[in-house]
Amino acid sequence: MLVEGEIRRTLWPDDGLDALWVIDQRRLPHRVAIERLGGVEAVFVAIRDMWVRGAPLIGACAAYGLALQANADAGDAALQAAAARLASARPTAVNLSWALQRMLQRLRPLPVPQRRGAAWAEAAAIADADVATNRAIGRHGLALLAGLAPRRGGPLQVLTHCNAGWLATVDWGTALAPVYCAQQADIELHVWVDETRPRNQGASLTAWELAQQRVPHTLVADNAGGHLMQRGMVDVVIVGCDRVSARGDVCNKIGTYLKALAARDNGVPFYVAMPLSTLDLSLQDGLREIPIEERSARELTHIGGKAEDGRWVEVQLAPDGCAAANPAFDVTPAALVSGLITERGVVAATPDALLAVSRQAP
Amino acid sequence: MLVEGEIRRTLWPDDGLDALWVIDQRRLPHRVAIERLGGVEAVFVAIRDMWVRGAPLIGACAAYGLALQANADAGDAALQAAAARLASARPTAVNLSWALQRMLQRLRPLPVPQRRGAAWAEAAAIADADVATNRAIGRHGLALLAGLAPRRGGPLQVLTHCNAGWLATVDWGTALAPVYCAQQADIELHVWVDETRPRNQGASLTAWELAQQRVPHTLVADNAGGHLMQRGMVDVVIVGCDRVSARGDVCNKIGTYLKALAARDNGVPFYVAMPLSTLDLSLQDGLREIPIEERSARELTHIGGKAEDGRWVEVQLAPDGCAAANPAFDVTPAALVSGLITERGVVAATPDALLAVSRQAP
Repeated sequence: MLVEGEIRRTLWPDDGLDALWVIDQRRLPHRVAIERLGGVEAVFVAIRDMWVRGAPLIGACAAYGLALQANADAGDAALQAAAARLASARPTAVNLSWALQRMLQRLRPLPVPQRRGAAWAEAAAIADADVATNRAIGRHGLALLAGLAPRRGGPLQVLTHCNAGWLATVDWGTALAPVYCAQQADIELHVWVDETRPRNQGASLTAWELAQQRVPHTLVADNAGGHLMQRGMVDVVIVGCDRVSARGDVCNKIGTYLKALAARDNGVPFYVAMPLSTLDLSLQDGLREIPIEERSARELTHIGGKAEDGRWVEVQLAPDGCAAANPAFDVTPAALVSGLITERGVVAATPDALLAVSRQAP
Repeated sequence: MLVEGEIRRTLWPDDGLDALWVIDQRRLPHRVAIERLGGVEAVFVAIRDMWVRGAPLIGACAAYGLALQANADAGDAALQAAAARLASARPTAVNLSWALQRMLQRLRPLPVPQRRGAAWAEAAAIADADVATNRAIGRHGLALLAGLAPRRGGPLQVLTHCNAGWLATVDWGTALAPVYCAQQADIELHVWVDETRPRNQGASLTAWELAQQRVPHTLVADNAGGHLMQRGMVDVVIVGCDRVSARGDVCNKIGTYLKALAARDNGVPFYVAMPLSTLDLSLQDGLREIPIEERSARELTHIGGKAEDGRWVEVQLAPDGCAAANPAFDVTPAALVSGLITERGVVAATPDALLAVSRQAP
C-alpha cells in the first residue's frame, strides 16, 4: 500500500538479516517514523507499547522476533524463552501465539546450526502468507460490496471501527481489504471511520491510510454510529477481529459490540473480516472464555497529539487522580454477526460453518 | 453543590443586578474559572461556545440574558430581538426557547418601566424552579435506586453518559440528582462515567463534580459500556435528555442510543431523568421530527487538555485536512426506555403516561 506515494509493507527484514524494520505507528498520523528493531527485547517493547498493532501484524512481527533470537542463540531453551517473552506482550491476540507456535514447530526439529536460516525464511513465509490471506479476504469482501452497491444511488457507505487496514497487517488489511479491492474495481464508496477511543486508531491510523490511498472517508466519534445507522447513512459495517470462538463469537476492539447492536436494530449487515488464524476452535462461549486485556488508565486520562507548533504533546483530559477502567476488547455474540469474511470465502457465524471452513483444504 | 468545598450554584446574578456570573465550564476539570457576563451578546457567546451547557442551565442562563436586555432596553422589539438571538445559540435544547417564552410572557403585559425588576425576579424564579425540579427528580430517582440496591452485595453500579449533573443545571443535576440523594441516604454506590466524546463532558465535568462531591466513580471510554453490561457490572443506566417527544422518544447526547441498545440486550434498566420542561408534546416521532445539531468538525479532530507544564494546550488528533462529521445528539426510541424520572414521579415512556403527567397539577 502507499505511504507518501511509495509502496511499502508495515515491516520488513534488514538486508543483512540482523534487524527488523517497522513503521512506529504511535506517531501517526503526524509523522511516519521507521524504526530498526535489533533483538527480541526491542520486538517485545514494540508489540507491548503498540509501535506495531493489529493481530496479523503482531504475529508476523513476533515471528521475526524469534528469527532475531535465532541469530543470537537458536537452542531450544533460548527459543522457548524468547517465545514466552514475546507471547506475553499482548495477551488477547491469538495470532501472536499462533505465529510463535508455527515458528517453534518449524525450528525445533532442525539441527541448531540450520535454525537461523530457517527462522528468517519462516518469518518471511508468515508475512507473505498474511499478504495472500488479506488479498483473498479482499476478493471475497469485494463480491459482498459489489452486491450491495447497486441498491443505493450514491457511494456505498461503509462503517468501520478501529484499524483493521493495511497498517494492522503486513499489507492490504483485513476489514479494509474489501474496501481497497472495491476501489480498484471502481465501486464508488465512502467510509465512516470510528475514531476508536481510547487509543484513537481510527482517527490516527484508519483515516491516515485511507487518505494515503485516496479512499473518501469521514471521521466520526464512536458515539455517532448508531445515529448514522438510524438515519440510513450506513449500508454495511465491516470490522476486523482479534479472536473468534468456535461458535462465532467475535472478540474485537472495545465498542465493536455496540456497533453490532445498532446494526441489528437498523437492519444493517454486520461483517467481520477474519483470517482463519484468528479462529480459536478451543473456545466456545466467547464472552466467558476469552480473556480481555485491561490496559493502562492513562490511555483514557491523557492523550497525545500535534500541538500548534508541530510538536507532539501529551495533555491530561480527566481530573487529577481520576480512576479509569480500560478494557481493550469486547465480545460480539455470534447472533449479531451477518457473516465472517475469511480467505476461503464468506461463512456464517455458526459452529458448523466454522468447523467446515477450518477443515477445508487451503 | 460543592466546588472546592464551598457551596455554589452554576450561575448567580451580580448583587447590583447588572451582570450574571457563571462558571466557565470549558476549562474544567483543570481550572475553576468564574466569569462575568455583562450583556445579551456575552450570554449568547457563553451559550453558543458552551461556557455553560446542559439544557436546564442554558434555559436559566438565557432568562438572565433577557434580564440584562431589560436593563438596557425593555421595549417589545428589543426583548423580542434579544430572545431570537439567544434562542439561536443552541438549536436543539427545548429548555432554551421554553425559558425565553416564559420570560416574554411575563414581561410583555407589563408597562416598560416595570419590566426590568420583573425580569430579574422571573429569571431568579426560573433558576429556583430548576433547583426545586431537580431535587424532586432526585427524590423520585432515589426510590428507584433504593429498590435496586438490595439485589447486589457490593455498591450499586450506575452508568451515566455525558454530564447531566449539577453542572448541567442550576443545582443538583437531573440524571445525577438521584445519585446525590442516594449518597445522602447512605446507599453505597459507584458511577461508571462515559467520557462522552467528542466534547468529553463525562471526563471533564461528570468525573470532576462526582470527585468534588466524593461519590466513588470510574471513567470509561464510551466504547466500554456494552462490555460492562455484558459482564453484569452495571445495575442501572441513568442519563439526562435535551428533548422528549410526546410518545417518549428521547433526544440526548450522541451515543445515548447505543447505551440504550446495550441495556436492553443485557436486561439493564435504562432511565432518563426528564424535567417536564424538556417534554415537547408537539413532536411525535423523535427520529423524524427532532432537528439534530451538527457541530464543528474541529471538536473531533482537535482536543484541549492540560500539558505537563500545567498550560492548557490544544492538540490535533486526526490527519491534516481530515473530514469529520459531528452530530451532537441522537434519538433513543421510547421502546428502549424503562422509565422517565420527572419532578412529578417516574412515568412510562408512552403517549398516555406523558400526556397524563404533563396535565397533572404541580
